[in-house]
Amino acid sequence: MDNNNNLYKVYGINGALAIMDSNSCTINEIILSSDFQVERLNNQSKLLAKYRSKTQILSKGKFKNKYDSLRTQGIVIHFSYKVYNYLPENTLDSSNKCYVILDSIKDPQNLGQILRTSECAGVDGVVIPDRRSVSITSTVLQVSQGAFCNLNIIVSKNIKYLINELKENKYWVIGLENSINSKNWYEVDMQGKVAFVFGSEGGGIRPIVRKYCDYMATIPMLGTVNSLNISASVSAILFERNRQILKEK
Amino acid sequence: MDNNNNLYKVYGINGALAIMDSNSCTINEIILSSDFQVERLNNQSKLLAKYRSKTQILSKGKFKNKYDSLRTQGIVIHFSYKVYNYLPENTLDSSNKCYVILDSIKDPQNLGQILRTSECAGVDGVVIPDRRSVSITSTVLQVSQGAFCNLNIIVSKNIKYLINELKENKYWVIGLENSINSKNWYEVDMQGKVAFVFGSEGGGIRPIVRKYCDYMATIPMLGTVNSLNISASVSAILFERNRQILKEK
Repeated sequence: MDNNNNLYKVYGINGALAIMDSNSCTINEIILSSDFQVERLNNQSKLLAKYRSKTQILSKGKFKNKYDSLRTQGIVIHFSYKVYNYLPENTLDSSNKCYVILDSIKDPQNLGQILRTSECAGVDGVVIPDRRSVSITSTVLQVSQGAFCNLNIIVSKNIKYLINELKENKYWVIGLENSINSKNWYEVDMQGKVAFVFGSEGGGIRPIVRKYCDYMATIPMLGTVNSLNISASVSAILFERNRQILKEK
Repeated sequence: MDNNNNLYKVYGINGALAIMDSNSCTINEIILSSDFQVERLNNQSKLLAKYRSKTQILSKGKFKNKYDSLRTQGIVIHFSYKVYNYLPENTLDSSNKCYVILDSIKDPQNLGQILRTSECAGVDGVVIPDRRSVSITSTVLQVSQGAFCNLNIIVSKNIKYLINELKENKYWVIGLENSINSKNWYEVDMQGKVAFVFGSEGGGIRPIVRKYCDYMATIPMLGTVNSLNISASVSAILFERNRQILKEK
């Protein structure tokens, strides 16, 4: 399973545009409904023309039969996409780098949202373990709204080894947990090279991973519901990092 | 439609506990599967005992037939819940108050997540318009994981009127938009009495509402995917507000 190419299916205009415009995806087939309006691709209809030989147009009825339950907007793309199994070497050096490490996320919606948020926040890669975690599926990529095209996704056989590799490359490793004993999130220096470790929904970071973290940070909850959704935590943390970087400029 | 009591259904242990423990919900019926394990309620099984007369136990098979597709954890609650149609007067005064105003959210998952994040961040209320918006449905309340029990939800017939009322009560009204002409989000003073206005997924804030905002703020995107999911934006903004408040203490 070395830097795997897997087959995926994504529908809708945002995702389709991102995939057609990306170097990290290889398109196998584009399926259009006969009533698909090319002008909905805005100025990027040229992209679709490039893939004319791989495009199949189905009658409105046939398309609806095949994809009825999905919000397709009349376009479905089948493609292969490469996930990494190791940290991409060229991204390890230079200033203000950031990896998001997800220790055992279970929900594909959460993972998809985290990919989208991570890309919007400009992180360099998202790491998931190859076991005890939701996999990279079409649903995950769908929810990410094309963000995966511009993001390194690393499926690691050994999270501890990977964290050590980051530490050897002078990354600070910051674990997030729901604990009054941890530092408030904004009191942690997030500039320079950092990796954030988030645990599973409900379960948190496993102790075996937690002990590799240099710092533990927390976002205190002010309501009575005990914990924030994991993707909401990721957003709060990544934009706090961006705040710290931007205010120095 | 004055301070409406509507009927809802929520399943799962987190939601059930929040509803049983809440003054804002009136429970009509609790349905348990015969294999429901009361110890899963942790120390709060007393709560369930309180509602014994309203509890119906179904055989495992019948329960599964009725609720199969839902992740129920063996418990389903039918209840009524009051949304407000006006700003609750007693919440208007005092320092560090916050309302979240959602101008035309379309997706029930997004609204549910925003309710959860808002409660965790300690806001005083969430406002949605009564038209051009997803309504408060069982799905929305389900996604919020019980957060609605501890949050004022205001369904407003007239958002502009409501914003004016907030302004008369000395709230600063801050609109969020994706624009390089707006201030960076962390440069806006969020302490004291504030209301944040978020627009619809894709469409943004309507011009007719935008002109009531005192400031416009933006979260610059650092990736190539153009925009953050609305619930991720809400999280970044509300925890920036909490940072500003906490660091002053």
